[in-house]
Amino acid sequence: MSEATLEAIVALCKRRGFIFPASEIYGGFRNTYDYGHYGVLLKNNVKNEWWRSMLQERDDIVALDSAIIQNPRVWEASGHLAGFTDPLVQCLGDCKQRFREDDLREEQLGAEDAEGEIRCPVCGGELSEPRQFNLMFETFVGPVQDESNKAYLRPETAQGIFINFKNVLQFSRKKPPFGIAQIGKSFRNEITPGNFIFRTFEFEQMEMEFFVPPADAGEWHEYWMEERLRWYSELGIRPEKLRLRAHGADELSHYSSATSDVEYDFPMGWSELEGIANRGDFDLTQHAEFSGDKLEYVDSGSGDRYVPHVVEPAAGVDRAMLSFMIDAYDTEEVEGRQRTVLRLHPRLAPVKVAVLPLVNKDGQPEKAREIYETLRELMPVEFDTGGSIGKRYRRQDEIGTPWGVTVDHQTMDDDTVTLRDRDSLEQVRLPTADLTEELTRRLKEPWTSPKLGAAA
Amino acid sequence: MSEATLEAIVALCKRRGFIFPASEIYGGFRNTYDYGHYGVLLKNNVKNEWWRSMLQERDDIVALDSAIIQNPRVWEASGHLAGFTDPLVQCLGDCKQRFREDDLREEQLGAEDAEGEIRCPVCGGELSEPRQFNLMFETFVGPVQDESNKAYLRPETAQGIFINFKNVLQFSRKKPPFGIAQIGKSFRNEITPGNFIFRTFEFEQMEMEFFVPPADAGEWHEYWMEERLRWYSELGIRPEKLRLRAHGADELSHYSSATSDVEYDFPMGWSELEGIANRGDFDLTQHAEFSGDKLEYVDSGSGDRYVPHVVEPAAGVDRAMLSFMIDAYDTEEVEGRQRTVLRLHPRLAPVKVAVLPLVNKDGQPEKAREIYETLRELMPVEFDTGGSIGKRYRRQDEIGTPWGVTVDHQTMDDDTVTLRDRDSLEQVRLPTADLTEELTRRLKEPWTSPKLGAAA
Repeated sequence: MSEATLEAIVALCKRRGFIFPASEIYGGFRNTYDYGHYGVLLKNNVKNEWWRSMLQERDDIVALDSAIIQNPRVWEASGHLAGFTDPLVQCLGDCKQRFREDDLREEQLGAEDAEGEIRCPVCGGELSEPRQFNLMFETFVGPVQDESNKAYLRPETAQGIFINFKNVLQFSRKKPPFGIAQIGKSFRNEITPGNFIFRTFEFEQMEMEFFVPPADAGEWHEYWMEERLRWYSELGIRPEKLRLRAHGADELSHYSSATSDVEYDFPMGWSELEGIANRGDFDLTQHAEFSGDKLEYVDSGSGDRYVPHVVEPAAGVDRAMLSFMIDAYDTEEVEGRQRTVLRLHPRLAPVKVAVLPLVNKDGQPEKAREIYETLRELMPVEFDTGGSIGKRYRRQDEIGTPWGVTVDHQTMDDDTVTLRDRDSLEQVRLPTADLTEELTRRLKEPWTSPKLGAAA
Repeated sequence: MSEATLEAIVALCKRRGFIFPASEIYGGFRNTYDYGHYGVLLKNNVKNEWWRSMLQERDDIVALDSAIIQNPRVWEASGHLAGFTDPLVQCLGDCKQRFREDDLREEQLGAEDAEGEIRCPVCGGELSEPRQFNLMFETFVGPVQDESNKAYLRPETAQGIFINFKNVLQFSRKKPPFGIAQIGKSFRNEITPGNFIFRTFEFEQMEMEFFVPPADAGEWHEYWMEERLRWYSELGIRPEKLRLRAHGADELSHYSSATSDVEYDFPMGWSELEGIANRGDFDLTQHAEFSGDKLEYVDSGSGDRYVPHVVEPAAGVDRAMLSFMIDAYDTEEVEGRQRTVLRLHPRLAPVKVAVLPLVNKDGQPEKAREIYETLRELMPVEFDTGGSIGKRYRRQDEIGTPWGVTVDHQTMDDDTVTLRDRDSLEQVRLPTADLTEELTRRLKEPWTSPKLGAAA
């Protein structure tokens, strides 16, 4: 068993077509990435599992997909226009580069709010006074580029949910406690993006705003912390690599009375996977004030009216995907050869089964193709005839395919195949006719990471 | 049987929570929309069906998800920076409004390229000389807003595919003919968006670039026209509402030697659902020139090298969804009452089954809940206890739920339920134990629109 370095993951992602640097033929574009075939499949599976946990397994949450470019008043009300900023300093010496002041203070003085002089980390030059830099990307809608046509790319999907609170209340027949869930891209003009897909300009969020009676907010906050931790561990992340960390009073956002981060033990240290905030009534109150609309819940029976409080689990798709890959990454020696394997939860694996003829003759490819065509009605399957069987297994191991079906000489005699397990490497022989049932059964079984067992 | 007006669809979309105007509490934001619960489910089903046809049912296409903000050189090479423009005129009279010159010519003179004077359609004022207005949204990446940091929101997903051609060739082991498919948002600063979700600033595309040996491009173009037409009609659009229209020589884009649009007979007339273009080697050649990289296919056996030609079926998710809803929309009188029903293909329907207790007592809700919890493991199901049974059926009809399971007095005696069909209104009684199998069977059956049968 072994742990992944970020370099090993980046290399695997490129080698197997999960993730490529964006605009690579043009020298790339800062810290931006494109997702290749297996990256798309894995990311879709992560999103589907989130939808499953939010929609299919419960009935108090509805879905939403709001626009990226909204009326700019939304960002006035939310506080982003005034306050979604980083402090920026520029080198007054030779290099003229820009840096986040808080990062430099932490690097050079040991704490963000420490007093003392900081210098340019590149050329040692003096630094300018800090100025506040807004992280929202600006654009203009319509043909005239003036203030009245300025608009913003959303920095979070959450506000799209708050501004639809009234519509959902009216047309979905929900009442508190209920949630609105959304998956979509957000954009932040980060000065220092980095760590592969951990922090990028554009990224995908999975956010859910859960509206509750004010008195119950604390309890629901606890509930969602537990739920979200469970989600990651049920999908295979080892519990010792996950923790909840409550924000200190100095870290809390202006809207939040309590926030805990789900953190993962990334190669660069414990870092945020997801923030779970008690946002109180801040957002609904702000939007009510700025829009002049009443954003409250009125109980049709008792006539009671109140502004619900909001508990928000806000996760990043790309980060979640990165943590699943890192946690699943493993290398081991098998019969004198090194193999790399992604021990992904079968529900997350981009491909569930590879169907491989042992040799490319004697009717084996045709038989394998036939099995492949049956199975692909039910699940994502690959048919692979390229190269030696060992090379094909190594490839499937690296993309995390949990099972391999091999068609060999014996198959042509008795219509049985071998079924190989990615993790245990156990091979069992079974009739071709039983494959569908066996694979469907295995896909539904609870699963724990074999890395977990090994560490125990 | 009846046909939908756009107004009827807009009203249904709001009433049932499919689609809301974006930023509605702030008076909206031009022609921008947010998708509510059933809108998200329907849109996801449309996208899943596209992925199914591109990935699961064949093995010559791989997936990609490229960034929205790429290196600006991409748009230089593609020709968008210089040529992705609309001609814009401004009123020199009182109102100072801006219009697309080509639209005004067509409205006032009957043809886009007609000679003659056009006037402001609002105040009758004189118009300025036209100037070319680029439809790409601009933004700045990083803290400095100067030319060197200018970037663009992609106006199409296609270019993200071309710039990854080399990566995919190298890491996915495909060779021509093969395709790269992508679903994602694109942005166009349209001067005259409109017709509900038909034309909006931000919209979702489903584009596939199919790379072929140059000599085969014409044949593949024909192939993809047929395939894409088939996709729409297999998902329930009536064939008489679909047509292929070849672009005239004056309509062709600079990159295309032949394009045909799949058009749907929308309430506002025949309009483009999807363009199927033979792009030749234009894009790969341009990116090779601008990047200095070789973008060609080299046959490892024969050593032959060539720049593949590209056939592109480029569809809009939002438009496809709109056409599915319009085509499915129907009203009829049943037992003296008017009902509205969305006759969606079951695979597209947001909810497959509604489980309804006839009355809210005598153990019926508990029994219905039990059935609901079994079924939701397999498909999207709703459990609905609110209001009279007739009211609940009308609601499910309007969101297009193909089947209703009703738990009644008899259920409590003999454990049978009634299964109602949305279209025929036929009700059959069957044992609860047989429900899963019956519904799974019905979901897999080929399906044609009952509106088709009625028209014949």
